[in-house]
Amino acid sequence: MAASDLERLIQLLGRLPGLGPRSARRAALHLLKKRDSLMQPLATALAEAAVSVKSCANCGNLDSEDPCAICRDPKRDPAVICVVAEVGDLWALERSATYRGRYHVLGGTLSALDGIGPEQLNLEGLLRRAGDPLVQEVVLATGATVEGQTTAHYIADRLAGLPVTVSRLAHGLPVGGELDYLDDGTLMAALKARRPL
Amino acid sequence: MAASDLERLIQLLGRLPGLGPRSARRAALHLLKKRDSLMQPLATALAEAAVSVKSCANCGNLDSEDPCAICRDPKRDPAVICVVAEVGDLWALERSATYRGRYHVLGGTLSALDGIGPEQLNLEGLLRRAGDPLVQEVVLATGATVEGQTTAHYIADRLAGLPVTVSRLAHGLPVGGELDYLDDGTLMAALKARRPL
Repeated sequence: MAASDLERLIQLLGRLPGLGPRSARRAALHLLKKRDSLMQPLATALAEAAVSVKSCANCGNLDSEDPCAICRDPKRDPAVICVVAEVGDLWALERSATYRGRYHVLGGTLSALDGIGPEQLNLEGLLRRAGDPLVQEVVLATGATVEGQTTAHYIADRLAGLPVTVSRLAHGLPVGGELDYLDDGTLMAALKARRPL
Repeated sequence: MAASDLERLIQLLGRLPGLGPRSARRAALHLLKKRDSLMQPLATALAEAAVSVKSCANCGNLDSEDPCAICRDPKRDPAVICVVAEVGDLWALERSATYRGRYHVLGGTLSALDGIGPEQLNLEGLLRRAGDPLVQEVVLATGATVEGQTTAHYIADRLAGLPVTVSRLAHGLPVGGELDYLDDGTLMAALKARRPL
């Protein structure tokens, strides 16, 4: 079998989502064939990103700078905040290229099964931001899962006292669908057809 | 979208076999959630393996030391050399844990389409090793593809003058294979190579 350094590399690669033991071995051989063009750059990129990438203190997005590029962008509408569960969901919405407001990343969804309550989510920051007189609308863009909808309703309740419109993505999302896996067209349609809760 | 360090990481991860753009993004988020337990160790393992892992000058296997662990192992039978196309094939045979001889990695198979001729393969080393009086058998373990079989026949011709037995892996039904699902070629080979029970 492979030697210790190689075994360790394969074992670590196999812990990436989407790579099993067999594809981890294939990836390791591929990397060793492309040491200069891929292996070393990937090692550097991993080490650099591990240090430089941090959560935006304002919205929870991941970026090398804090506040993040979206929070810093003066062209993004500060009157609308789109609430998503995870950074991957934010990326999915950005790829659909229809939304021009700001974001708020919760860091998860309410889940009794997984023991995730309101205090585990980045909710205080959202309530603070939604209280800003500039903000007119909060779009709840959690998934069409039980947890996503529970989270949306919970946040709508918490925002009830504030003078902001609370909307959610249209029911164009397939039931059980996760944002990160949806095609851009569906996301675009759902975003355009958002309705007040 | 993601920031530059993160974008670069995702782009590099997406170049691994088995990871597309979407799974590369998922892998990046997973890594950022496990910076200390996975991301930093993976960066270190990549950088270390890129420097330490080299091809064995004798057999072409990958190892941190040269000669490799298999060539150094006194318990491996030096009388039998198993010829494989790639290091991944060597690993596959090692996992089956039935072969106790040495190996020789060609680094590919003959392919007119891909412009791979005999001079691109590690053949001189094999001819030199097969000429050692200790060696009694060369097992040609290239794949049952057109390229694999062409390569096996070419090597058998080159070894013809030497006093070694040249064999190849048996062709037939894979273990667990159902006749109904097998291709005609495999069935034909299995029928031709039938053996008395």
